[in-house]
Amino acid sequence: MTQRSISLADIAEKIGATLVTKLVANDDQLLVSGISTLELASADKVTFLANPSYRKQLATTQAAAVIVHPDMQDECPVSALVMNNPYVGFAKLSQLFNNLPTQAAFIHPSASIAASADIAEDVSIAANVVIGEHVHVGSGTRIGANSVISDHSIIGEQCILHANVVIYHDVVIGNDCIFHSGCVLGADGFGFAPDAGQWVKIAQLGGVRVGNQVEIGANTTVDRGALGNTQIGNGVKLDNQVMIAHNVVIGDNCAIAGTAGIAGSTTLGQNCTLAGGVGVVGHVNIADGVHITGMTLVSKSIKESGVFSSGTAMMPASEWRKSATRFRQLDDMARRLKKLEKNQ
Amino acid sequence: MTQRSISLADIAEKIGATLVTKLVANDDQLLVSGISTLELASADKVTFLANPSYRKQLATTQAAAVIVHPDMQDECPVSALVMNNPYVGFAKLSQLFNNLPTQAAFIHPSASIAASADIAEDVSIAANVVIGEHVHVGSGTRIGANSVISDHSIIGEQCILHANVVIYHDVVIGNDCIFHSGCVLGADGFGFAPDAGQWVKIAQLGGVRVGNQVEIGANTTVDRGALGNTQIGNGVKLDNQVMIAHNVVIGDNCAIAGTAGIAGSTTLGQNCTLAGGVGVVGHVNIADGVHITGMTLVSKSIKESGVFSSGTAMMPASEWRKSATRFRQLDDMARRLKKLEKNQ
Amino acid sequence: MTQRSISLADIAEKIGATLVTKLVANDDQLLVSGISTLELASADKVTFLANPSYRKQLATTQAAAVIVHPDMQDECPVSALVMNNPYVGFAKLSQLFNNLPTQAAFIHPSASIAASADIAEDVSIAANVVIGEHVHVGSGTRIGANSVISDHSIIGEQCILHANVVIYHDVVIGNDCIFHSGCVLGADGFGFAPDAGQWVKIAQLGGVRVGNQVEIGANTTVDRGALGNTQIGNGVKLDNQVMIAHNVVIGDNCAIAGTAGIAGSTTLGQNCTLAGGVGVVGHVNIADGVHITGMTLVSKSIKESGVFSSGTAMMPASEWRKSATRFRQLDDMARRLKKLEKNQ
Repeated sequence: MTQRSISLADIAEKIGATLVTKLVANDDQLLVSGISTLELASADKVTFLANPSYRKQLATTQAAAVIVHPDMQDECPVSALVMNNPYVGFAKLSQLFNNLPTQAAFIHPSASIAASADIAEDVSIAANVVIGEHVHVGSGTRIGANSVISDHSIIGEQCILHANVVIYHDVVIGNDCIFHSGCVLGADGFGFAPDAGQWVKIAQLGGVRVGNQVEIGANTTVDRGALGNTQIGNGVKLDNQVMIAHNVVIGDNCAIAGTAGIAGSTTLGQNCTLAGGVGVVGHVNIADGVHITGMTLVSKSIKESGVFSSGTAMMPASEWRKSATRFRQLDDMARRLKKLEKNQ
Repeated sequence: MTQRSISLADIAEKIGATLVTKLVANDDQLLVSGISTLELASADKVTFLANPSYRKQLATTQAAAVIVHPDMQDECPVSALVMNNPYVGFAKLSQLFNNLPTQAAFIHPSASIAASADIAEDVSIAANVVIGEHVHVGSGTRIGANSVISDHSIIGEQCILHANVVIYHDVVIGNDCIFHSGCVLGADGFGFAPDAGQWVKIAQLGGVRVGNQVEIGANTTVDRGALGNTQIGNGVKLDNQVMIAHNVVIGDNCAIAGTAGIAGSTTLGQNCTLAGGVGVVGHVNIADGVHITGMTLVSKSIKESGVFSSGTAMMPASEWRKSATRFRQLDDMARRLKKLEKNQ
Repeated sequence: MTQRSISLADIAEKIGATLVTKLVANDDQLLVSGISTLELASADKVTFLANPSYRKQLATTQAAAVIVHPDMQDECPVSALVMNNPYVGFAKLSQLFNNLPTQAAFIHPSASIAASADIAEDVSIAANVVIGEHVHVGSGTRIGANSVISDHSIIGEQCILHANVVIYHDVVIGNDCIFHSGCVLGADGFGFAPDAGQWVKIAQLGGVRVGNQVEIGANTTVDRGALGNTQIGNGVKLDNQVMIAHNVVIGDNCAIAGTAGIAGSTTLGQNCTLAGGVGVVGHVNIADGVHITGMTLVSKSIKESGVFSSGTAMMPASEWRKSATRFRQLDDMARRLKKLEKNQ
């Protein structure tokens, strides 16, 4: 792949840091070719110190420069890129070295695009993409190979759909979104009415609405609404294999980690985080700023921000079996304890 | 999208309700254009009252008509569609307004269809579909863009395969089934024999057999059998991202919610439901009519119908940590409690 | 499908067993056409006895031959294929009857292959496959319909990619690997820096490195590294819908069952097994030979081999609710128990 080189002065400007050179004159014009860790960085790399537990590695780093907080500037033995949030600096720096292959604004001849589709002029559409009737694709958007967008859906500007993404009909997506391979937006919600031991399908008549700056991971699914829409707010980040059921509403800037799932009609406030494997039951409301630890089952509404958990701690299986057996007896134990207290 | 309009009289006939008009003459010919909730419905919409907790919204609804139980008929301020199971009425009504884009009976020229495949005359095959040798596709079935059906598989009549569905070889599917995007039927079961620290692959020689009226959600996977088939009964509904391992047998009319998984060779009876995130271990038998609550691990066979659970309730993380610590000490606590009782 | 027939003598040679015929002369030339269970096998099938709990079925089996341990040889009423590890024998036997449709060494005319890609001569590439710039595909590898391989990735020799597999850029895969449909290798890891309530994307600059003899299940996702690579060792087997986050390192010959997930930067030793639904938190180290039971949350590093669990046992929901309620009170119960002991 092509190697990029950027001067420290350019980096400072682009990430919003103050460059403090330490070694020799013209260090600000030193070209660096990538990012590494404090420990492994060579003299042509930039690194960063965000987590205090790596502080002791600062003294011996071989990097060309380190993104550091002002408090750390004096300890930095090499050029310092000084800013208040070095981790954000690292994030911005990573984007300067982004190696995602470019996809030219070009419509591959094997793409099948309905005559009624409205494709902006500088869109890139890769091989075997299929686009339905009355679809709109905004300018600067790129659609990866073998992706499918069904009728009446709208994709905003500057979006990236990687290969094999499926967008069903009546899905509306904002600008600057990223969709990873295998994700599916707008499949039917899981709705059936029981009728004498059988299930009668409830046609899922709603759609999906996705805000701006949303990223959706590989093989994640966001179902269409039954009546009304499933809604994903601005700035929401969904990891891989996340499952969002019909009519869920996710507030702005939530982040949901891999294999988590939210059941139907649940509402998440803004700036919530769900760790990996979390499940949220249907028809509950979660307040703003709620954080759920890994593999917790959220079984009811949460009215105030905070951190919530369920489950038990990991143990050697032989000991765990004893605790699990006693768990069944817990109510009995509690009653016996109370009786002992009474008899005292 | 095209707007449908249906008269109340037509609706009554098609959902099996008795229309009781309340407002003016000729209300039975009133055209409605969609479905909404009791609270939000405008005068051109039909709604329903199935959940008693919404009863108080009935008095003020603006809907053209409400599907109600006979007991509620007198309370209904607008035209009533009276039937014993209003939720089933809603389900049937939703199908009248189904807005899934139609796909004409047409074979897209970009489809790759093996010469030996047997495709009924009124089948719809979208762009880039790939169909292998000796495949049979029944009449009225539509296959979405970029789906793949491998050799010797059989798809029944009136099925819908959405975009990017994969059916491996030797998978037999009944009639009136729906397969959502990204689902995979017939991938190899997870079978390996340990041999001196390495794994020897067990070729998965069985297939998959799927009944009629089955719906399979987006990115769900149903593995082929090792010897013999994995079997999905009639009327089974699988939500998104469900994992069905090799040689599992699922009885008729089971419904399994998102991200649930069933390990190899387990048998589920009829009319069971697994909530989201449930796991069932391998080689167990679950009776008819068993219901498992969210994220439960089913660790052994269940011989009678009923509701089953595992896990712990959600708590603020700071309190949860204390309970989790004590969980490790449960066996010790139980012994100490017993000792106190003895010493009493 | 074509029926295979193999003589018992050939089977013995190919699976490394000693054939001991019991019935008549020339039994070693008896042709068998498949594999079945001890219970169901007919006279043209071979079966095996690996699990002692099926021992009683040996006496009445109708199979042509049974793969047995030397200790069982005398009890076998039919021809015996004697070897120390009958289950490995069964695995090898299954491969002799593998019915996976063959895919001729042929490049389908609908495949889109970049001019700079380097495709070995005897590679099979199915319909609608898309291969990017500078990709290398090794000899004997077959790529299923509608799969996509992005720029600069390398696929080794004798690999099988089933339909609809997606390999992003800069993913390097060894030899003799199997990738099932819908799996995605190299999507972005889930990395964002929080900045005043919003998330700044961390470009994921690393790749994925996969060893030899690796099998990856349907709809499994393995993310690319942030800096440095995500690594999957030799002989690793991942079941369906497994989620491997960025910079995870998985040691040789680990086996991970369906819907399990491993969070970022965690390292798994060699020969570990994770049962279905297991979650492992990020940034921990798991020793060699660790086994985790179903749906356990691995919340910290594990320094020695062993079996580990979390969670609670399944119960009828009505009883479970009582235990779950008491779980919240556990710390209080423990304090009260201690007090009783003091007051004794």
